[in-house]
Amino acid sequence: MNVLLHLTAEMIERIFDPRDLARLSKSNTIFTRDDLSHLADVDVLVTGWGTSALDDAFLDSAENLKLIAHAAGSTRYLVPAKFWSRGIRLCSANEALGIGVAETTLALMIAGLKGFFPCAQLTREDQWKSDGLPWPVREMYQIDIGLIGASKIGRHVIRLLKQFEVNVLLYDPHVTAEEAKELGVERVDLMELMRRSEVVSLHAPALESTRRMLKREHFRAMKNRAIFINTARGMIVDEEALVEELKTGRIFAFIDVTHPEPPRPRHPFRTLPNCVLLPHIAGAITNGCRRQGRSVVDQILEFQEGKPMHGEIGEQKWKIMA
Amino acid sequence: MNVLLHLTAEMIERIFDPRDLARLSKSNTIFTRDDLSHLADVDVLVTGWGTSALDDAFLDSAENLKLIAHAAGSTRYLVPAKFWSRGIRLCSANEALGIGVAETTLALMIAGLKGFFPCAQLTREDQWKSDGLPWPVREMYQIDIGLIGASKIGRHVIRLLKQFEVNVLLYDPHVTAEEAKELGVERVDLMELMRRSEVVSLHAPALESTRRMLKREHFRAMKNRAIFINTARGMIVDEEALVEELKTGRIFAFIDVTHPEPPRPRHPFRTLPNCVLLPHIAGAITNGCRRQGRSVVDQILEFQEGKPMHGEIGEQKWKIMA
Repeated sequence: MNVLLHLTAEMIERIFDPRDLARLSKSNTIFTRDDLSHLADVDVLVTGWGTSALDDAFLDSAENLKLIAHAAGSTRYLVPAKFWSRGIRLCSANEALGIGVAETTLALMIAGLKGFFPCAQLTREDQWKSDGLPWPVREMYQIDIGLIGASKIGRHVIRLLKQFEVNVLLYDPHVTAEEAKELGVERVDLMELMRRSEVVSLHAPALESTRRMLKREHFRAMKNRAIFINTARGMIVDEEALVEELKTGRIFAFIDVTHPEPPRPRHPFRTLPNCVLLPHIAGAITNGCRRQGRSVVDQILEFQEGKPMHGEIGEQKWKIMA
Repeated sequence: MNVLLHLTAEMIERIFDPRDLARLSKSNTIFTRDDLSHLADVDVLVTGWGTSALDDAFLDSAENLKLIAHAAGSTRYLVPAKFWSRGIRLCSANEALGIGVAETTLALMIAGLKGFFPCAQLTREDQWKSDGLPWPVREMYQIDIGLIGASKIGRHVIRLLKQFEVNVLLYDPHVTAEEAKELGVERVDLMELMRRSEVVSLHAPALESTRRMLKREHFRAMKNRAIFINTARGMIVDEEALVEELKTGRIFAFIDVTHPEPPRPRHPFRTLPNCVLLPHIAGAITNGCRRQGRSVVDQILEFQEGKPMHGEIGEQKWKIMA
């Protein structure tokens, strides 16, 4: 088949391991966007970060197009509303994109419980303490860890936590009791999750319905010395309420995303001693991006072999995804 | 059977979850060291942190003793040389003790690769960068991670890393090619490990033969921007050589153990920007200690049911263990 990589040369380099491209070119002819004269003969279109929205005129020209393989997450903006009548299939690397976020989240959980940041601060001040710390060191053993949202990322966090002896609490209104059982988690309501967890990690989608879903009452309900982690989106949190709770010194936070982003100079997320602000790095930003390239190559080959694509997005899913 | 907890009340509280003690007392009578008048009737002796060495006089008095279950790691100091002729069996919670160290190591690997510390420093300085960082952010994807020593801890790190798409290099002179294959790791010599790894983590035992085994040439061989992690013991490292390499700014280190411990005020481990010093917290120090209690309860019940004890230590093993 003819595969068009509708990406800049820089982006191709960034998201494709040469070994993955070699797997693709074994049974396909690969074109790049430098030459769109073949558009009418293209069977598979690879899109990704930096690909602008595909309008109807473009899709009309690509008259043989059978599959769009999006080497990134959100496909909402990518295709026009009437796209679904064309019979073209769509898949994305959404799952690959979440792996890194989940891995970073796991590290932040342990870093928070073991007090990496407060301990490192004390050793710089010539101290050497493992008890009587301002933030008690705790281990991943028989404690409650609360996850908000069984998204792809949330589910990978659950998977990673299976190797640890912790009790996972999940709040997700769309998860049934049966599904929670399959996932091996304890399904609870949001307030119970906030009250019981040593660590609360946010993995809900950024939608109008989730805007500022974490409010003052939720942060106030957290245990003393509990840890809040946001690697999802800033807009899901009432950030003023979070700052207010952080200012009491009762809880600790790792914040990788803010609203707006970046936060202003001297924002409390930057200055509070019990808050560690990261510059939106939880997900793939360097070599991890090549997971996305591998994911679309896998799916194009699955498509060509008539197998189900693990990241296929149908019309219904497309409508509710962020 | 009669089980004597030869531990202070404080230590019993620290290492035993009441639920584990309840499992034990279901089929056993439990005594504490407050009353040693029953020593002659004791079948199982539980020892641990703070239990002084058991001399021959003590063991002579405990004439019915069948098992010593040590709720800690090192048993070398615990029993006298002639102990083995008494027919008493010995087990320890050594494996449980290593779980937390391995978990902390995993978090340090991700924290190092993702640049948690340098990124957090920059956001405090009102910056917001995810590229052009002094320490490039990297992900746990198709990189080489080097482990020195397939100890219990090293093996648990290997187990944890199975959920990550990384290539594990192992240097351990006692591991055969066949065993490396079973472990799913690439067996290499020490210099190759130092040269190739993005992260080098030390899990060798502290023995005379491993004293300062990591020397100047090893640190010099490390890649630019590679990360060195020591959660084992300070004496295994030539610390002056490590400091010298850190001063070039080429590598980054997480140091949880030093020799001597703690390091002096203003030690370079405390002051260098590319070194994070932790106060020996990688292992269990709070709730994680209850893994040790659970481990000995499990093993006492295994012993009583005639099953193999998963942490049994025989004479040969006792002689070579640290």
